[in-house]
Amino acid sequence: MAKNVLVLPGDGIGPEIVTEARKVLELVNERHGLGLEINEALVGGAAIDATGVPLPDETLAAAKAADAILLGAVGGPKWDTNPDFAIRPEKGLLGIRSQLELFGNLRPAILYPQLAHASTLKPEVVSGLDILIVRELTGGIYFGQPRGVREKEGGIREGFNTYVYDENEIRRIGRVAFEAARARDKRLCSVDKANVLEVTVLWREIMEDLAKEYPDVELSHMYVDNAAMQLVRAPKQFDVVVTGNMFGDILSDAAAMLTGSIGMLPSASLDENGKGMYEPCHGSAPDIAGQGKANPLATILSVAMMLRYSLNAGEAADQIEAAVSKVLDQDLRTPDIMSEGMKAVTTAEMGDAVVAAL
Amino acid sequence: MAKNVLVLPGDGIGPEIVTEARKVLELVNERHGLGLEINEALVGGAAIDATGVPLPDETLAAAKAADAILLGAVGGPKWDTNPDFAIRPEKGLLGIRSQLELFGNLRPAILYPQLAHASTLKPEVVSGLDILIVRELTGGIYFGQPRGVREKEGGIREGFNTYVYDENEIRRIGRVAFEAARARDKRLCSVDKANVLEVTVLWREIMEDLAKEYPDVELSHMYVDNAAMQLVRAPKQFDVVVTGNMFGDILSDAAAMLTGSIGMLPSASLDENGKGMYEPCHGSAPDIAGQGKANPLATILSVAMMLRYSLNAGEAADQIEAAVSKVLDQDLRTPDIMSEGMKAVTTAEMGDAVVAAL
Ligand SMILES: CC(C)[C@H](C(=O)O)[C@@H](O)C(=O)O
Ligand SMILES: CC(C)[C@H](C(=O)O)[C@@H](O)C(=O)O
Repeated sequence: MAKNVLVLPGDGIGPEIVTEARKVLELVNERHGLGLEINEALVGGAAIDATGVPLPDETLAAAKAADAILLGAVGGPKWDTNPDFAIRPEKGLLGIRSQLELFGNLRPAILYPQLAHASTLKPEVVSGLDILIVRELTGGIYFGQPRGVREKEGGIREGFNTYVYDENEIRRIGRVAFEAARARDKRLCSVDKANVLEVTVLWREIMEDLAKEYPDVELSHMYVDNAAMQLVRAPKQFDVVVTGNMFGDILSDAAAMLTGSIGMLPSASLDENGKGMYEPCHGSAPDIAGQGKANPLATILSVAMMLRYSLNAGEAADQIEAAVSKVLDQDLRTPDIMSEGMKAVTTAEMGDAVVAAL
Repeated sequence: MAKNVLVLPGDGIGPEIVTEARKVLELVNERHGLGLEINEALVGGAAIDATGVPLPDETLAAAKAADAILLGAVGGPKWDTNPDFAIRPEKGLLGIRSQLELFGNLRPAILYPQLAHASTLKPEVVSGLDILIVRELTGGIYFGQPRGVREKEGGIREGFNTYVYDENEIRRIGRVAFEAARARDKRLCSVDKANVLEVTVLWREIMEDLAKEYPDVELSHMYVDNAAMQLVRAPKQFDVVVTGNMFGDILSDAAAMLTGSIGMLPSASLDENGKGMYEPCHGSAPDIAGQGKANPLATILSVAMMLRYSLNAGEAADQIEAAVSKVLDQDLRTPDIMSEGMKAVTTAEMGDAVVAAL
């Protein structure tokens, strides 16, 4: 049966970077006879503009039917002031994650040797950096109920959200992380705030429990404030980091920025069966949208992750990653990773260069 | 009437660093005729060992009666495994913050020019760094009710915490931050996750409201994930940052670590009337406790903050800060800030050097 990829360009630079990634996907589809059927749908602000909601039923149905999803990015100031919290671009993204139970978010933070200078950290601190952050993506305070704004006595308003994880949610993301660690350097650091938050006391207990099933993996625990410090102080101490949705949001962005080239970092969000959504770690960058300045490589590398994790085409994935390395060796640079002596290229030129390298 | 300072050595390196800070406090007390009465009490693990609880009634009463409190640090592996969550060292610290309503936590992240090399970031990224993080300290998810671990149907356990802020809590920390920005470079960045969490939608609204009272201060907003990135990418873009308890815990530690010398950073936790608790930003470092390796300068600089904010002795505060700068100029270094060509000193030698410089 033909496999089915849904492409969601989204907002800001989303459409531009997805256009380039799609070129790459179509090429490998043909060359490797993958027989992929590729469709497109609306999400985020683009969907709000066209249909009034960030996640139209049609898009959700197509996402459910797809074997894998490629997302550009969502959001922008145009929709930020919408007083109706349900009609925000982010709700489209969160809706897909949640409805498709894409709970396992893999966010690698890798320093490309060709871009080592781009980091704000000293070379000896980050050279060879290769961390994988495993973030729980469909639970925690992002989705906890009850939530909202209510009036207390005296008419004083209070905002409230609920941070909640049950054993099963913790165990399933724990397994993803232990498996990932097993396939890498076999060290897993679980990040929590177990000295203050009860949720994370349970989190720590379940991780300890799971560790018995993975005697070959070394489990350690770290408080989230210390983890933020250690990422700055000595990031190479980490192999795989596992944490909840909110802490993962913060730490994965900090980790990504250590590399200095967030325009290079892909991500995967997987369900229990390996179906997934793939997207760059960076956002929709509305300030540079439509100017050919965006770096399409994170999205192209997201295609590689998609081929590897959801489409059983690891060889094609390897080739894409090699092609990306090759264009860097050719000194081609979009503005975000530009440096002296390198050749400035546009979004489309970078995409074409990867296609040529393939 | 004589003013009253309560000293809480706490755990780990706490007693050592507090001993040095107390030397400094006693000297300026005498020299400036401050007439301070200085008492000591137990908190944290030390209090658990002696009394069975992390915050004995006696300590709480003394803290309430004091005009200012100097804390070393609390916590250590010895007490971490206590299954009763109420009998942890951290509860002593959290209890004082909460019972005394010390809601305004000021955490400066300053790079000392003499220690510029200690940062893991490139000199051009951090030289001259001077950020003030204003963290709300008595609300948010740290204290929200309900909280705990409960059983769902099927006997599945779930942990839950509540993230909550009301308008008044937001407004009072907002005022602290706007006032601080007014006295500095007049730029305030409020950090939230208003694209996901309702609490922080209210937070953002109240900050916008307050901004009308402070037309001379430029208010901006940033999502917490982006703030974590921007601290790594370009930390000097910030002047004052204001955020809630949990985000503040994470971001202030990341910001502190940008300087590479967390052993140098003091903090203040203030109530509505300027009464406060003062403590170093670093923790109790049980691994080096009792070895004379701890850096007492953060605690000594906490004494300076105490004199300035709670004891109306700004001149004495200035002198202490100048003395600290002088010992750095004398090339004296504890192990945490040691580098080639400098003179290694112990905790006590560093304290004595500051006293001598005074
Ligand atoms: C856009 C936003 C809702 C999202 C998140 O917070 O999860 C983004 O920051 C991310 O990390 O994918
Ligand atoms: C010890 C711990 C409870 C505390 C906190 O989380 O507030 C500490 O990390 C801090 O930042 O002062």
